[in-house]
Amino acid sequence: TQAFDYNEHPHRRFNPLIGEWVLVSPHRAKRPWQGQKESAAEVEKLQYDPSCYLCAGNERTSGAVNEQYTDVYVFDNDFPSLLQVDVEMPEENNPLFQIEPQKGINRVICFSPRHDLTLPEMEVEAIERVVDAWKEQYIDLGGREFINHVQIFENKGAVMGCSNPHPHGQIWSQSSIPTLVAKTQANLKAYYAKNGTSLLEDYVKSELERKERIVVENEHFVALVPFWAIWPFEILIISKRHFGNITEMTAEERKAYAAIIKATTVKYDNLFETSFPYSSGIHQTPTDGEEHPEWHFHMHFYPPLLRSATVKKFMVGYEMMAEAQRDISPEKSAAMLRELSEVHYKQKTN
Amino acid sequence: TQAFDYNEHPHRRFNPLIGEWVLVSPHRAKRPWQGQKESAAEVEKLQYDPSCYLCAGNERTSGAVNEQYTDVYVFDNDFPSLLQVDVEMPEENNPLFQIEPQKGINRVICFSPRHDLTLPEMEVEAIERVVDAWKEQYIDLGGREFINHVQIFENKGAVMGCSNPHPHGQIWSQSSIPTLVAKTQANLKAYYAKNGTSLLEDYVKSELERKERIVVENEHFVALVPFWAIWPFEILIISKRHFGNITEMTAEERKAYAAIIKATTVKYDNLFETSFPYSSGIHQTPTDGEEHPEWHFHMHFYPPLLRSATVKKFMVGYEMMAEAQRDISPEKSAAMLRELSEVHYKQKTN
Ligand SMILES: O=P(O)(O)O[C@H]1O[C@H](CO)[C@@H](O)[C@H](O)[C@H]1O
Ligand SMILES: O=P(O)(O)O[C@H]1O[C@H](CO)[C@@H](O)[C@H](O)[C@H]1O
Repeated sequence: TQAFDYNEHPHRRFNPLIGEWVLVSPHRAKRPWQGQKESAAEVEKLQYDPSCYLCAGNERTSGAVNEQYTDVYVFDNDFPSLLQVDVEMPEENNPLFQIEPQKGINRVICFSPRHDLTLPEMEVEAIERVVDAWKEQYIDLGGREFINHVQIFENKGAVMGCSNPHPHGQIWSQSSIPTLVAKTQANLKAYYAKNGTSLLEDYVKSELERKERIVVENEHFVALVPFWAIWPFEILIISKRHFGNITEMTAEERKAYAAIIKATTVKYDNLFETSFPYSSGIHQTPTDGEEHPEWHFHMHFYPPLLRSATVKKFMVGYEMMAEAQRDISPEKSAAMLRELSEVHYKQKTN
Repeated sequence: TQAFDYNEHPHRRFNPLIGEWVLVSPHRAKRPWQGQKESAAEVEKLQYDPSCYLCAGNERTSGAVNEQYTDVYVFDNDFPSLLQVDVEMPEENNPLFQIEPQKGINRVICFSPRHDLTLPEMEVEAIERVVDAWKEQYIDLGGREFINHVQIFENKGAVMGCSNPHPHGQIWSQSSIPTLVAKTQANLKAYYAKNGTSLLEDYVKSELERKERIVVENEHFVALVPFWAIWPFEILIISKRHFGNITEMTAEERKAYAAIIKATTVKYDNLFETSFPYSSGIHQTPTDGEEHPEWHFHMHFYPPLLRSATVKKFMVGYEMMAEAQRDISPEKSAAMLRELSEVHYKQKTN
């Protein structure tokens, strides 16, 4: 019997947000890699690309033409996953064949007219305007009678299925509370009922004391690698103050939120000196008109890279059939990210 | 209000195995694709490759040398995710920081000494010997006191993180019941407690009556696209007779199982005339020594391709934050696969 070392011994950790375990195999990062490598070739990008369907003034595949926007620009997705059609569904009584209609609105949000930028390369003030637009969208879409959830997210990089390098995100709003949000909500509610406090408020307090998983913080927000992280360099951005959604942020908090998004994504780019791919998304109170004291505003970053700009973690096989699995301890990942500069590698002066 | 059409209208379907919904956006398959394409370049493979660490007689990275095997070959993984070390873990009472040690054994199983083959190109008799080896492994590993679950799986293709084209799978066995299996078991148990029958036994009966999602069947097994499929061409292979694990199969059933694996993977290769990538895995009774009348032997195939040999479905953004989403109805996918030949495209004589 050996004394447990979390950088050496296989173990499992529990994610209380979704009620699932992750297998941690820290010793495994040593194995040689002979599998697929991603392309990391970075082409010099134009500030305005005449062939980009997201650049200002350009025509999209649908034939619609983008406004001559100079800041953030939001429009309805031309190929939405959700529609506003009312349908009549025949009854199905077999519990093994449950089906329900779904209505919703999908939008695209261009973060900047500059085709060649990404969030880490934008000024904090420009990111603040993205945050403001997210707030407006949450109010506009969430305010509709048939919209009970607004999912704000970004897919960055070709490896994340992003079909256009122009900096942009998406918003999918819909009538149901989607699976992962419903699962999280059930766990947050159970914790709140039991303890009378919010799970994530208690969690962020503990992490601020323990310090070992914190990557960067400012007066109002913390970016940390969660104790139960699945992705090698997964990050949770979480508010220090307990509130449920983006409309409850003070002006100061909005600034601090924009600043921590910048700091986090700059560190990401600096890790392998590449435009770091990820999916990010905001989790906050559903817009179902109910009270939600259990929710605490946060944002997830799920980046696929593992060892370098070209070697990613594959969530396949065992992970698809059995359990998420990681090859490096969250504490090690946090330490690596923490040590990196907050100045973008492309902007360093020598 | 329009009459519901499952090939036209967005809707959600419920997966009773894991208790989660999937968003179906069938109209969305029409959108143009401008994102990343996988490489489909297929190189002519040698029957024996001197540089392959899985070929018979060759040396592996660890220095171990493979036997001169002529059939199926099983060995302990040189870079296991699990170890057999006993550790002493300090107590942690905060429910937000739950952690537990994990012991286990990982093995690699070469399906054939032939470097250039894959399951769809092997003879049914040769696949039968793979099935026999799976059974032996389930007994050998599952029979150990500290092993409560044996996960048999295969990652096929570089896009699935498979680092070597030599036909092989893996077995990860461990002390805990992994997350997805535990979740499935809880749902199977609840159904059994309520109805006195197995959920999957009832499901396969209904599907045999409804017919529209069946891809191929023989006397003892069915391959179908489940009603709640997430991946575009996901398949569930399921036994017609109710039994819990591979040791309970009759000799006839083992033959039929090998035959349906061949038929399924041949159709996969024929779909886009490419070596079709996927992760597959067997779900069966845990080896925890308890009675499990709720379990019904089945095998999942999760293939990533969506439109062609080079365009895959990305499970990112919305899918990572909110809910799985698909762009083609399971009925449409099943019809496409059903119509394909059971003769491999490379073996067709003109
Ligand atoms: O064991 P391999 O083939 O090296 O690795 C592959 O399969 C494993 C089990 O599904 C995954 O954890 C790895 O991410 C993947 O690259
Ligand atoms: O909407 P896009 O950018 O065309 O598509 C991308 O994001 C979507 C939402 O996460 C995913 O469903 C798609 O698989 C992905 O390719």
